Amino acid sequence: MQTPWIHRFAQRTQRMQSSAIREILKFTQLPGVISFAGGLPAPEVFPVEAVKAAAVRVLRTDADKALQYGLTQGYSPLRELIAERSARFGLNINVENILITTGSQQALDLLGKIFINRGDRIIVESPSYLGALQAWNAYGAEYVSVPFDENGMRTESLEAALRTGPKFIYVLPNFQNPTGVTLSLERREQLVKLADQYGVPLVEDDPYGQLRYTGKHLPPVIVLDSRYRNNGNTAYQGNVIYLSTFSKILAPGFRLAWVVAPKEVIAKMVQAKQGADLHTSTFTQLVAYQTAQDDYLDQHVILIRNIYNERRRVMLDAMTEHFPKSVHWTRPDGGMFLWVTLPDGMNSADVLTKAVEKKVAFVPGGPFHANGGGENTMRLNFSNSSPEKIQKGISRLGQVLHEMID
Amino acid sequence: MQTPWIHRFAQRTQRMQSSAIREILKFTQLPGVISFAGGLPAPEVFPVEAVKAAAVRVLRTDADKALQYGLTQGYSPLRELIAERSARFGLNINVENILITTGSQQALDLLGKIFINRGDRIIVESPSYLGALQAWNAYGAEYVSVPFDENGMRTESLEAALRTGPKFIYVLPNFQNPTGVTLSLERREQLVKLADQYGVPLVEDDPYGQLRYTGKHLPPVIVLDSRYRNNGNTAYQGNVIYLSTFSKILAPGFRLAWVVAPKEVIAKMVQAKQGADLHTSTFTQLVAYQTAQDDYLDQHVILIRNIYNERRRVMLDAMTEHFPKSVHWTRPDGGMFLWVTLPDGMNSADVLTKAVEKKVAFVPGGPFHANGGGENTMRLNFSNSSPEKIQKGISRLGQVLHEMID
Repeated sequence: MQTPWIHRFAQRTQRMQSSAIREILKFTQLPGVISFAGGLPAPEVFPVEAVKAAAVRVLRTDADKALQYGLTQGYSPLRELIAERSARFGLNINVENILITTGSQQALDLLGKIFINRGDRIIVESPSYLGALQAWNAYGAEYVSVPFDENGMRTESLEAALRTGPKFIYVLPNFQNPTGVTLSLERREQLVKLADQYGVPLVEDDPYGQLRYTGKHLPPVIVLDSRYRNNGNTAYQGNVIYLSTFSKILAPGFRLAWVVAPKEVIAKMVQAKQGADLHTSTFTQLVAYQTAQDDYLDQHVILIRNIYNERRRVMLDAMTEHFPKSVHWTRPDGGMFLWVTLPDGMNSADVLTKAVEKKVAFVPGGPFHANGGGENTMRLNFSNSSPEKIQKGISRLGQVLHEMID
Repeated sequence: MQTPWIHRFAQRTQRMQSSAIREILKFTQLPGVISFAGGLPAPEVFPVEAVKAAAVRVLRTDADKALQYGLTQGYSPLRELIAERSARFGLNINVENILITTGSQQALDLLGKIFINRGDRIIVESPSYLGALQAWNAYGAEYVSVPFDENGMRTESLEAALRTGPKFIYVLPNFQNPTGVTLSLERREQLVKLADQYGVPLVEDDPYGQLRYTGKHLPPVIVLDSRYRNNGNTAYQGNVIYLSTFSKILAPGFRLAWVVAPKEVIAKMVQAKQGADLHTSTFTQLVAYQTAQDDYLDQHVILIRNIYNERRRVMLDAMTEHFPKSVHWTRPDGGMFLWVTLPDGMNSADVLTKAVEKKVAFVPGGPFHANGGGENTMRLNFSNSSPEKIQKGISRLGQVLHEMID
């Protein structure tokens, strides 16, 4: 028999909104379903042999470190490697500016822990990344949504949002999840100026920065901020807290990501991380460090770009062929997702119900909007399915849309 | 130049008490210091060859799973293995009762997230595990300390504590960190009854349960609770949330632990974990699962017990030889720590200052007491140093104590 406290507990859990991401995972696992729902890398791009060689080497030469407890801030040689790679993008930082986290999701959680008290406001793009909203909901965050178009967050609407006294601004400038949209250079510069003017931190989430397939690389917001305040060769002291990850360029199964921020912010996050999981796996840190030797990641990322770029093109071509004329979508320059807008009044959750009957899945766009709206939008992932499956899946989805629209 | 928000931030961080554990780590890294301060397993007991073989095998046969995103609740075969091993201790559970966490520290953090609001009371032993206090301080917990003796938490004092309306009771029944003390069978049964009577959850933290060197195995509190409510063969539905870990029987560098609890509690923790780090590394989960095949852990744990038992005996003998008569200490039946009580009025922080000059380190006992006290106590770790170093280090510490006491 259930004891009374569990009974109360179960009722409370049921009252909470069931997680959209979890519901999604169920669809992807039905047999025969072609899923554009997840945000999974393609297993074909996992560097299995390189990881195997690295693991063997680490256990031969460094097992005492790889299997033992480690520093909360992360394995120092890995942080040095990140500092060196950051310098290529014009960012002068040292190991004191870097924290290794258990995936970027943990960085989002730690930011919630150190910044957010119940009722605090966060400025987000509309739509924004679901995992961030989920992390910060747990701390009682409220959101101020800033409108969004094909060039990203509409910075001309940002001042009104800044006047509400937010704890920070959250942006995904490159190939945003969920839309695939890239923030223009002009708006990046505007963002830096406004954050400085209002003295508000800027959280820049950049998991896909290296996965650009077309167009010119744009400097990360943290680099523009660093230039803006003319930091020169000193350690970074600006407004931006920058997140990136090994999940998309190496393997998500490592749960390995990093934060770049002023050292005072890193110190506070280290303190929070100590209570959260002591430190990120030393084993995965050392294996990733070893795998990354001799600029292996640079060669590997070229392979990933080629494969994902083909899938992106195949999906865009298939959509042009199969989707009704009244449906619109983004044409991302990189990343893993694109974003579909259905005619006004349509509900993508209804489309999903019919789509799953035809064995194709995606994510309805509603939950990505912190303050509601977007019921006629949907997110499609193009990285995880083969070109053949993409063609077949988009054709099925096109049938569903034609049946519902025509 | 620092922007204003970072400036405020740095001031706030400085005001916070600097972490005792972090201060400890500094001592252990000074050259020539013999450290009894950390809680590190001996690197000599890391199963390096077994892990290497397992890693190679996992990457040969299961790389697609090991490197990809996984389920938040954890790798199902690993949860099945834990369920099978739990059955040996008389505990009937299934995979729904189990959550894999990024070390037990994460389990403590998730419990804070789902149970504790600012000002909520938690019943703890005095002294108790520092990492738990640290995790729950972040959620604004208050503590009700229950006195403690050589048989563990004094359950006759528990009722008064239970009348304060606590969110849960936190106990470490086996070879407690920091004292090495084991909770007696009679008190375990008393604990189960009182938790049931007051309808309060019991968090049982058991990282060292398998590291018993002498005396008879005592059933975990969760097993007694299960018997008490006569659950029979049904899934566990009682009051206990049980934590254990692979850190002490395999390798802490994997950051791999688990929670056993009623499935309603697990569901709520899964939801919290999704926001905290999505899931624990699939790579370390699959490598640990592969390493544990063919009852490897059972053989390996015998090796660990033999090595740690010798170190325990060497430390106890050296203390009898070198410590002043007015100093007392526990004689643990297992685990990794023992606990020293100095004469009333002495402060172990002063002892540490002098000890570090003589190149030996330990942890002062004060910070382990949630509500103050224990200034004349200290924790010594016996698992991480060789018998020779233990003899030398205890001899140095004995000199310091004789100089201060005699």
